[in-house]
Amino acid sequence: MKAEILCVGTEILLGDIVNTNAQFISKHLANLGIEVFHQSVVGDNPERLLDELENGFKRSDIIITTGGLGPTPDDLTKETSAKFFNRELILDEKSLEDLKDHFNKMGRSYSKGNNIKQAYFPKGSKILPNPHGTAPGCILEVENKTLIILPGPPREVAPMFTEYVEPFLKKYSRGIIKSKTLRISGIGEGIMAEMASDIINNSTNPTVAPYAKEEDTILRITAEASTEDEALTLIEPVESKLRKIFGINIYGEDDVKIEEVLGKMLIDKDYTISSAESCTGGLIAAKLVNYPGISKVFKEGAVTYSNEAKINRLGVKRETLDKYGAVSYETAREMAEGIAKTSDTDIGIATTGIAGPDGGSPEKPVGLVYMGLYIRGKTQVKKFQYFGNRATIRKRATMSALDWVRREIMNI
Amino acid sequence: MKAEILCVGTEILLGDIVNTNAQFISKHLANLGIEVFHQSVVGDNPERLLDELENGFKRSDIIITTGGLGPTPDDLTKETSAKFFNRELILDEKSLEDLKDHFNKMGRSYSKGNNIKQAYFPKGSKILPNPHGTAPGCILEVENKTLIILPGPPREVAPMFTEYVEPFLKKYSRGIIKSKTLRISGIGEGIMAEMASDIINNSTNPTVAPYAKEEDTILRITAEASTEDEALTLIEPVESKLRKIFGINIYGEDDVKIEEVLGKMLIDKDYTISSAESCTGGLIAAKLVNYPGISKVFKEGAVTYSNEAKINRLGVKRETLDKYGAVSYETAREMAEGIAKTSDTDIGIATTGIAGPDGGSPEKPVGLVYMGLYIRGKTQVKKFQYFGNRATIRKRATMSALDWVRREIMNI
Repeated sequence: MKAEILCVGTEILLGDIVNTNAQFISKHLANLGIEVFHQSVVGDNPERLLDELENGFKRSDIIITTGGLGPTPDDLTKETSAKFFNRELILDEKSLEDLKDHFNKMGRSYSKGNNIKQAYFPKGSKILPNPHGTAPGCILEVENKTLIILPGPPREVAPMFTEYVEPFLKKYSRGIIKSKTLRISGIGEGIMAEMASDIINNSTNPTVAPYAKEEDTILRITAEASTEDEALTLIEPVESKLRKIFGINIYGEDDVKIEEVLGKMLIDKDYTISSAESCTGGLIAAKLVNYPGISKVFKEGAVTYSNEAKINRLGVKRETLDKYGAVSYETAREMAEGIAKTSDTDIGIATTGIAGPDGGSPEKPVGLVYMGLYIRGKTQVKKFQYFGNRATIRKRATMSALDWVRREIMNI
Repeated sequence: MKAEILCVGTEILLGDIVNTNAQFISKHLANLGIEVFHQSVVGDNPERLLDELENGFKRSDIIITTGGLGPTPDDLTKETSAKFFNRELILDEKSLEDLKDHFNKMGRSYSKGNNIKQAYFPKGSKILPNPHGTAPGCILEVENKTLIILPGPPREVAPMFTEYVEPFLKKYSRGIIKSKTLRISGIGEGIMAEMASDIINNSTNPTVAPYAKEEDTILRITAEASTEDEALTLIEPVESKLRKIFGINIYGEDDVKIEEVLGKMLIDKDYTISSAESCTGGLIAAKLVNYPGISKVFKEGAVTYSNEAKINRLGVKRETLDKYGAVSYETAREMAEGIAKTSDTDIGIATTGIAGPDGGSPEKPVGLVYMGLYIRGKTQVKKFQYFGNRATIRKRATMSALDWVRREIMNI
């Protein structure tokens, strides 16, 4: 059973809104085990909508549309669909009553001329009520083709989909598609794909696919099966091979964040932490604080952006700054030791670097970041080189810093 | 000149990511006066990609693709495009050099097997360099058809589009659509729309449209004209009416960020600043550090998450914490004064609140945040109540804090 999504709306083609409906519906279809082969967007234009219905039903068995159900004359999804299937439009009395009720409750006059078209549907449709707006949806099944027509606003699409469309589509659901994502840090997409190339190339069910994300890389294992348990049984041996290859580089699964992994680990092992940031400027602290339980272990963050703050707050020596510069191994070391000492924590993590766009030099280019990591009496310093704009460099440095702490704590 | 957008990526069809590239490109094409008639998404599948290129070039003169330029074997956009136009793939030496450089700088081994395919392009292509990633784009013009191939990651698409694609497309631009956005803080979308309802309802060219964003609200003024100057002349009187209505609530224009507005203002007026954060946990500092010039005025941020840190770093009195609690007017006041004093700055901004999901009570519910603002000898304290999840509460509190400083500095 192949499905596709057809969104109608000039505002999407103008780039005024981002098409979150397509994402929502795709995700839910994937969970039902119905494969989405295509998404498309056309404007409020009946000829192009008709063309796309024709192209779409050549490719797919099910088309789900969003948008074009409004009260204005340029809202034409139902009209065009009726034409495509050669059906007339019929007034649905129940929908008309709902519409009148809705306007009464809103204290607005029911404007017959415009809104009444929202109660008309292609003959033979199953109506999908819309308690969140004025435009009901509908499902039309003609021979082997299924057309599901939904409104445009995402807050109306979501409840209509889960309440009516999902139960309806269950009959087409050939089992389920289940994915598991392994999140990997410190390895680029290309190298990751090479390290796992045997598994990627030789796996069919589950499949394994590598992706680069902004702060990390992921491997997604996707199985098709008739039940969730069966899918998990298919995923398990592949996952365990990948875990052997990538080991400690895998920091978590699915949508977990590094701060959650690290936060739990610190709490479990009872290590308190503090941060001293220059180029990352508060992002490490902000990430840690994302994790609700962090107050048990995170004592303090210092954003020591100026040299004075590095000296006064962290006890970095003035001669260190003079001799080696603020962006140096030596400064990173003293920052990490300084924050751990003054905040009395087991761990002190420190960053100092050049986030750009200015301030770089041939010896110390933009993207250069030194990090210091103090853990219970022992300090290490590392040098990193990032690429991208200021925001990207800062985000990636933050990821590396948190991940470095994770790796060290795991090894203890 | 008709254009369409074709995004390649199974991730989009699975609903794992939302298609922001389509929005970005659509918006920029609209600004160029090039109409977008169609958007589509296909998976990493060469047959379906080939079909869509065929369908697309029946409808449109220009197709812009995103995605499928990665190093892995399932990245096939260039290969499929070459097949469509019956061209061979040719190694571009300059791109290969860039690729090697990139890997050298990263201190990673250049993995020939996989990554080298990123330096191959359909014969006759104009190459679009990618300083933000390993996959250059390209433009291929064959007879009356123009194919523009861009990478997938939005942070690579945006600079490549504005730097290379926009100048290239200027020749196709018939007239322009020009927008100006007024960014408003501290007023919700509904009230904003009411305050401006006369202008919103009675403007046709330019149009005025209100939108709610996560951290602020915006009014977008959009004019159609044959030149940019003409569009700006249409926008100007409407903008000036809106500025009269909203006054100081408008903090900036277009894509400006609050930290940029505030950063410039602090530098201009020569006010130094420091921050003391509890619930926002580094986000205020991190936002300020987003602005590259900030080091002139931002001296230090303290993330005083624990009571000890509030006492030791900021000089908050233990009896204040005992009597009123960490989340209180009194603590916010002492935090703001404390950070300004110890870091010797003109301004000290402080936050203390309950970001949730736990820790709320009937008296002090989740979302309650006290903020203190010290400016040259004078301290004010305000109480805010936010709604949403932990991340939303923290982001909105950060926005309010920065915006509060802006308003106070403007009034000086």
